[in-house]
Amino acid sequence: MKIAFIGTGVMGHSMAGHLIDGGHDLVIYTRTRSKAESLLERGAVWGDTPAQASDGADIAIAIVGMPEDVEEVFLGEAGLLAAATPPSIIIDMTTSPPSLARRIAEVAAAKRVSSIDAPVSGGDVGAKNATLSIMVGGETPAVATAWPVLELMGKTIVHQGPAGAGQHTKMVNQILIAGGMLGMCEGLRYAEAAGLDGQKVIDSVGGGAAGSWSINNLGPRILNRDFEPGFFIEHFLKDLTIAFHEAEVMGLDLPALDMAKAFYERAVSEGLGRKGTQALQLLLEKTTEVEQA
Amino acid sequence: MKIAFIGTGVMGHSMAGHLIDGGHDLVIYTRTRSKAESLLERGAVWGDTPAQASDGADIAIAIVGMPEDVEEVFLGEAGLLAAATPPSIIIDMTTSPPSLARRIAEVAAAKRVSSIDAPVSGGDVGAKNATLSIMVGGETPAVATAWPVLELMGKTIVHQGPAGAGQHTKMVNQILIAGGMLGMCEGLRYAEAAGLDGQKVIDSVGGGAAGSWSINNLGPRILNRDFEPGFFIEHFLKDLTIAFHEAEVMGLDLPALDMAKAFYERAVSEGLGRKGTQALQLLLEKTTEVEQA
Repeated sequence: MKIAFIGTGVMGHSMAGHLIDGGHDLVIYTRTRSKAESLLERGAVWGDTPAQASDGADIAIAIVGMPEDVEEVFLGEAGLLAAATPPSIIIDMTTSPPSLARRIAEVAAAKRVSSIDAPVSGGDVGAKNATLSIMVGGETPAVATAWPVLELMGKTIVHQGPAGAGQHTKMVNQILIAGGMLGMCEGLRYAEAAGLDGQKVIDSVGGGAAGSWSINNLGPRILNRDFEPGFFIEHFLKDLTIAFHEAEVMGLDLPALDMAKAFYERAVSEGLGRKGTQALQLLLEKTTEVEQA
Repeated sequence: MKIAFIGTGVMGHSMAGHLIDGGHDLVIYTRTRSKAESLLERGAVWGDTPAQASDGADIAIAIVGMPEDVEEVFLGEAGLLAAATPPSIIIDMTTSPPSLARRIAEVAAAKRVSSIDAPVSGGDVGAKNATLSIMVGGETPAVATAWPVLELMGKTIVHQGPAGAGQHTKMVNQILIAGGMLGMCEGLRYAEAAGLDGQKVIDSVGGGAAGSWSINNLGPRILNRDFEPGFFIEHFLKDLTIAFHEAEVMGLDLPALDMAKAFYERAVSEGLGRKGTQALQLLLEKTTEVEQA
């Protein structure tokens, strides 16, 4: 297939590579052309705008940054839907608002284009190893057509429902992480204050009812004072903010989400936006004073 | 060895059974004698009080209910340490305050008795299958002596440090669960409000960075409206209250723990104390009103 691929950052670069390996013809647009260079060397073609890249493509895929980037890439003057011959399926793999996914789907439908929202989890490692979890929203025929392409990039692929359902599922993912992250950081803070050996604690608790991906993967990084990303705080805050607004629209009050969002807002304002999500620990350490070990 | 075993509730009953199977001579005391009957039929001997049960025993083990029960069983007039010939090692496997564990250890030391705190996680299933995680605090020689006995009941056994360190580790375990439970219930509440299929969502998120024991084990129960215990809310609240006070003594402010504790206090006041911890969902549903699905 001819596939337009927009956004070859850390995630997109690996994902686009899998599509080339899968035998597809890629046309690439990304903000900083140098980031696409090695893909161009592997046979991908350059497009000067999203519209140009997607012109005549069967499928156009984007994985970019903020909601406004998604809006521009899909709905902008030189966006995917502005192509002379738009692709029959457009797929947003960025984590962006469910409401935006529905809006894109409406605009697309008016042009007889199918829209799929397909945000991912699994990070750079999952993108590299094609083991991403892909949460899919959209109409069934388009999803069925896109499925073999998604399978080149992910391992756990679930069609969650109509337009927006993929993004909503990703929001659930982030809400789960937010609560778990609070528990993890507070638990390790307690362990430190109590004079425990953090790794031994993880050995005791990580395999049972308190076990989670976070405590077993990010817990040891915290113990090693490794606050590098993983997943940037500023991106996580973007996601939590989307979740917060969507919850608000639905009339939901989610206090742990609110608490996590407030913590990460403070983290960004204190210059920790480019640290990993586990750097929440640094804030918790600031707000608590240990009187006794 | 001659082992006194105090408390044959759901957990203790299975654990005592493993000790009989391991070839040890058990003397049992528990509040309601009928609950020990099948163990007595398997050769265990009855003791009328903890002191009587532990008289001349090599090791005395207790797993009872509230901190005041622990205090009475270990330090009371007819408690383990009041035996004519106290056992050389006493082990509290109840989840109880680290400060109480240290106090028991001091009283014991004055009588040349070694005290170990060894709370567990893994629930009734872990007790039944001898796959408990056992978090051990106490002096090394006593822990080494008790180790083969602990191994009959648990799979993951970690010596965390001196008296109280086992209980502190269990507190970390509960703090982790508290945060995770908040995230899980909020995530599933969001999923429901967004009109998603909860099980499909768990299929998407349960294996990745949002994955946890809670979402994969308690999540499906919530979706099936199964709020039976698992682990009683009233017991979890007891644990969170201990953690809260210990954190306070250490000068720690743990806001997610506080939030979870407040939720579970409300749950108990609304008559949900004998429901499983996942019934937090019922409270969250009450506090949020869905305007749009």
